[in-house]
Amino acid sequence: MIIDIHGHYTTAPKALETWRNRQIAGLKDPSQAPKVAELVIGDDELRESIEVNQLQKMRERGSDLTIFSPRASFMAHHIGDIRTSSTWAAICNELCYRVSRLFPDNFVPAAMLPQSPGVDPKTCIAELDKCVREYGNVAINLNPDPSGGHWTSPPLSDRHWYPIYEKMIEYDIPAMIHVSTSCNACFHTTGAHYLNADTTAFMQCLTSDLFKDFPTLKFVIPHGGGAVPYHWGRFRGLAQELKKPLLDEHLLNNIFFDTCVYHQPGIDLLTRVIPAANILFASEMIGAVRGIDPETGHYYDDTKHYVEATPNLDAAQREKIYAGNARRVYPRLDAALKARGR
Amino acid sequence: MIIDIHGHYTTAPKALETWRNRQIAGLKDPSQAPKVAELVIGDDELRESIEVNQLQKMRERGSDLTIFSPRASFMAHHIGDIRTSSTWAAICNELCYRVSRLFPDNFVPAAMLPQSPGVDPKTCIAELDKCVREYGNVAINLNPDPSGGHWTSPPLSDRHWYPIYEKMIEYDIPAMIHVSTSCNACFHTTGAHYLNADTTAFMQCLTSDLFKDFPTLKFVIPHGGGAVPYHWGRFRGLAQELKKPLLDEHLLNNIFFDTCVYHQPGIDLLTRVIPAANILFASEMIGAVRGIDPETGHYYDDTKHYVEATPNLDAAQREKIYAGNARRVYPRLDAALKARGR
Repeated sequence: MIIDIHGHYTTAPKALETWRNRQIAGLKDPSQAPKVAELVIGDDELRESIEVNQLQKMRERGSDLTIFSPRASFMAHHIGDIRTSSTWAAICNELCYRVSRLFPDNFVPAAMLPQSPGVDPKTCIAELDKCVREYGNVAINLNPDPSGGHWTSPPLSDRHWYPIYEKMIEYDIPAMIHVSTSCNACFHTTGAHYLNADTTAFMQCLTSDLFKDFPTLKFVIPHGGGAVPYHWGRFRGLAQELKKPLLDEHLLNNIFFDTCVYHQPGIDLLTRVIPAANILFASEMIGAVRGIDPETGHYYDDTKHYVEATPNLDAAQREKIYAGNARRVYPRLDAALKARGR
Repeated sequence: MIIDIHGHYTTAPKALETWRNRQIAGLKDPSQAPKVAELVIGDDELRESIEVNQLQKMRERGSDLTIFSPRASFMAHHIGDIRTSSTWAAICNELCYRVSRLFPDNFVPAAMLPQSPGVDPKTCIAELDKCVREYGNVAINLNPDPSGGHWTSPPLSDRHWYPIYEKMIEYDIPAMIHVSTSCNACFHTTGAHYLNADTTAFMQCLTSDLFKDFPTLKFVIPHGGGAVPYHWGRFRGLAQELKKPLLDEHLLNNIFFDTCVYHQPGIDLLTRVIPAANILFASEMIGAVRGIDPETGHYYDDTKHYVEATPNLDAAQREKIYAGNARRVYPRLDAALKARGR
């Protein structure tokens, strides 16, 4: 079995975006604000949006199951206030839940949170509860910068975030640390802001003792960990300067990297530097980079090619990266699979 | 000859920091503000601060010449206003100039600019002129985020920065794109902010047509290019989505990466992915990571070890990375060396 732990619903029916645009227009002119009930998307539409997109590519590429969350760049927590985000998160999470019911063999949902800049993360708990208990979500996406590129929240090591972590521990779910659209002109969303956030989150963990407070807390750092594996020596050296334990002990019981690195040398580096136990297969398909690499003839984001081709993994390590680690890091996924005899 | 293009004066005599602290105190209480003349550092002090530090390590490690600029984290352009930065930059640049006069065979100066958040970069020209014409500086360090982690300036592709670029073209000098201390609690200075800035700057160039306006402009992106080489496939794919030319043509006539990547797998990736013509030897010694790697027994920042050991380079490519490329990217360095018969 091959589990892709990083997929977003980037192909939702157009009605979703239209509704969101009306919601945004309603922030300035309340007469434009749509009701939730005005968004009507039928099962057939959902089915089609998946079948000709993610599911087709999964079949072509040979992955079986995707942990599926709302489109990251559309979370846009900086827009409006907590009510805006709450309504929007509920809609998006419900759609991913419905996809998981329509394709129970292929999609398992992960939740976005109704974060809003400057608002206590506690306000996300009700949505989180619903998504885990009623929708069967196996993880959350946690945005370390709900301001969208202005970085006005405290670091992830701050007690500000602890209410979320306490819930994660209670439910035994990991968080993927994933920002959304940048509204800072300095940062291109998928080319800079995403990667910067990955590096930033890792360093926030490194400088702190967060995982002493929460020894079983689990963070998935996407996009191959941003700059982290490439600069692993720098991070080992910085930890040493800061009198922290070796990174294996200090962070690698709690932090996992995905394989969303879109060329062979990158996956070769990742698998050479980071223990196989800390790598989770993922593609972020259909996502930021949708083209075919003229140098290889394959889709850039067809990351299975790179994982297959790297000389750094044996069969047992590949199995861990494809499925074993995911079942360990996402215990609710494992339980759901076992309940279905998988 | 081995040229290290990335060294900062991190070991300046304590009097410099003391003066700076008084300058900062003077922002709140003008009675504390020191005069420039109150900073007195003799040649012997300068000589000693270099001889037992950078120069000793250069001799031990076998590099000959360092392009030497003021301590990056001390630039702190966010402190005070343009007058604060102007006084501070003049002091720091003069010290690096004096070091270059005391050790003309080993140090060549590069200038910090008196940037200040929200201030027109034109105000940096007088200092830049002086540093090139009177002090023999062969490059500048340009801070894309003088706010120190709040990213309030326009992207490097904005006309805001063009007065600097016009001067760079006039003098035929490159800019190293280098931020300073982060005063945003989210970003650790050397573990996140530096690397993020490198990635951000690259992406700002990728999304723009800056190098169509300035075909001979040269940027050095330090710290091995942040996350860029590790995610080279992502950047190639994003350029493709944006209908930009191939990166070789679009950016690699103008952008160069240094070798400040502190472990073998990182340098192996850099030299596998980026053409040797675009790589410049550097260590940022004595800098962010000062310890000895217990896995190798060598200093983390002794990057020559990695460049020597990588299987991806032949002798001609190593020579380019050690010296040939630097002489091409820094024409004033080349001219200065030739004038001394080197």
